[in-house]
Amino acid sequence: MSADVVSLQSRRHKPSLAPMLALTAAGMNSVNAVILDRMQSEIPLIPALAGHLISGGGKRMRPMLTVAAAELCGYQGNRHHKLAAAVEFIHTATLLHDDVVDGSDMRRGKAAANIVFGNPATVLVGDFLFTRAFELMVEDGSLKVLKILSKASSIIAEGEVDQLTAQRRIETSEEHYLQIIGSKTAALFAAATRISAVVAEKSEAEEQALDAFGRNLGIAFQLVDDAIDYDSESSESGKDKGDDFREGKMTLPVILAYARGDAVERKFWEEAIAGFRTEDEDLAHAVELINRHGCVEATRERARHYAQRAIDAIAGFPAAEARAAMAEAVEFAVARRY
Amino acid sequence: MSADVVSLQSRRHKPSLAPMLALTAAGMNSVNAVILDRMQSEIPLIPALAGHLISGGGKRMRPMLTVAAAELCGYQGNRHHKLAAAVEFIHTATLLHDDVVDGSDMRRGKAAANIVFGNPATVLVGDFLFTRAFELMVEDGSLKVLKILSKASSIIAEGEVDQLTAQRRIETSEEHYLQIIGSKTAALFAAATRISAVVAEKSEAEEQALDAFGRNLGIAFQLVDDAIDYDSESSESGKDKGDDFREGKMTLPVILAYARGDAVERKFWEEAIAGFRTEDEDLAHAVELINRHGCVEATRERARHYAQRAIDAIAGFPAAEARAAMAEAVEFAVARRY
Repeated sequence: MSADVVSLQSRRHKPSLAPMLALTAAGMNSVNAVILDRMQSEIPLIPALAGHLISGGGKRMRPMLTVAAAELCGYQGNRHHKLAAAVEFIHTATLLHDDVVDGSDMRRGKAAANIVFGNPATVLVGDFLFTRAFELMVEDGSLKVLKILSKASSIIAEGEVDQLTAQRRIETSEEHYLQIIGSKTAALFAAATRISAVVAEKSEAEEQALDAFGRNLGIAFQLVDDAIDYDSESSESGKDKGDDFREGKMTLPVILAYARGDAVERKFWEEAIAGFRTEDEDLAHAVELINRHGCVEATRERARHYAQRAIDAIAGFPAAEARAAMAEAVEFAVARRY
Repeated sequence: MSADVVSLQSRRHKPSLAPMLALTAAGMNSVNAVILDRMQSEIPLIPALAGHLISGGGKRMRPMLTVAAAELCGYQGNRHHKLAAAVEFIHTATLLHDDVVDGSDMRRGKAAANIVFGNPATVLVGDFLFTRAFELMVEDGSLKVLKILSKASSIIAEGEVDQLTAQRRIETSEEHYLQIIGSKTAALFAAATRISAVVAEKSEAEEQALDAFGRNLGIAFQLVDDAIDYDSESSESGKDKGDDFREGKMTLPVILAYARGDAVERKFWEEAIAGFRTEDEDLAHAVELINRHGCVEATRERARHYAQRAIDAIAGFPAAEARAAMAEAVEFAVARRY
């Protein structure tokens, strides 16, 4: 353990993404070139639809984490560029399928692909990107990386089905919710960072440290995402605010508000999650109840817990600059309000 | 080339699937055990939905071809059992997504999964099976097999998008149609048989022969499928008869009827494929026009051409029994009327 670990509470200035962007700028140029090159196809609808989402203001957070983890490992090669692109393709495929599953209207601040191109094309181009991700991994040729990413992909799919099963079920517990986001979100973060330890031929302990970093960051990130959907102080997010509410998704702010509410409030939540309260005034009431019981802040507090675990997980890596940039990016992720 | 190649025209008795079933019985027992074992998940909806389709009367044709090809290669091991299961999972995933894309009502003679479980679950369980297929391949550990099957999967996805693009477009040519079915159907048949040559460590020429066998059989199979949808002499198929017509799919019987029709008939086809003629009487008229111009028989004739190429492709393999069983299965496939 290094002595210069920054704790979330001790930082004096507002966390910034700038060090992370600087750390990964060169690598991300290469990754972006692979992404643009490999989303092409002779079937014009494929790059059109994929480009709608991929070129549409995504943060490329997951491939950026792969690149950052490679820097943390002192890796000098370029194998991780293709793999980072594969990670982004897997993520994009799940976003496309999520939008079909949820019937989303908006994604990243513009009309979702299913609205512009229809559900059929969106499902199929999602499939295409997923297969393309596997082609990239096979080209790299590491069975260990293939195992990590195929396992992660399978866990993501299970998590998505699990989330669908929990939808509109008021009895969903915090433990079950954590299991869902651990699968649907954190598994890919964990794989994205772990594979850099593999290509850098680091020890099993270092692999596991980067897995833990990604996994905890992923959980923290999803918690904040779910908090923002009910945060009266947050600005508009890329997706429609109140989507989770109208879709009857059992996210932590709702789970906590239900647990902390009185009998009248619980009745409201039961009706709302079952789909009988979907008006704007119902959403406003939900936000009011969630804030009355401090559930946005409680969710953010949970997120800070996982964020701190992510930061501590990589304390043993000697690359101080990369480590500091990654830690500050984690803090940035949990402090964000959009 | 062996002298005892059976030509399609020379067989005296009606072709039977029995020799193929006998050839692959033992292997398919093992494959079925892998399929049932690996479609399990702690999320109950996954085996429920996957089982609806997988246990629901599928012919398991593609894994059967993998097993048969292994016999043809004289392969004594069991690696191909997992890989055959992976092939079936890939196929099942595409069927599930197809049913969502097409809004199918029926599949294999019963309600399609999307009708029973809804589109969201059907999309996500399709994703799960696809990822599970890759896990099985990674467990096997052959990068060559992974390359063949990830490439095939990518081509299938491209073919599906291509088909979607061609839908309701009367100008689709026979060449374009052949390209679509070469991707969406024949690529997986080709991969299913080719991988057995890889695990049996056969020569590149033998790999290519099995690839050609599967590819030509796949094209023949899809041609017959598409003919049956308009064949007035065929019994009910598992899917709803007339589905292709109502969905405006440009299959070969329609392409030929349009090409061979007069101005009045062409106007009918233009309106029908555009989606303005979807009544039962329109379908009856379509069948009448297709049969008037012999387009079902012409499509079947094209299928027999590819079937013969498939049979000839494996003439050089010494395993006479396996070769004869595979050849007769090809004949059976093109002669079927359901």
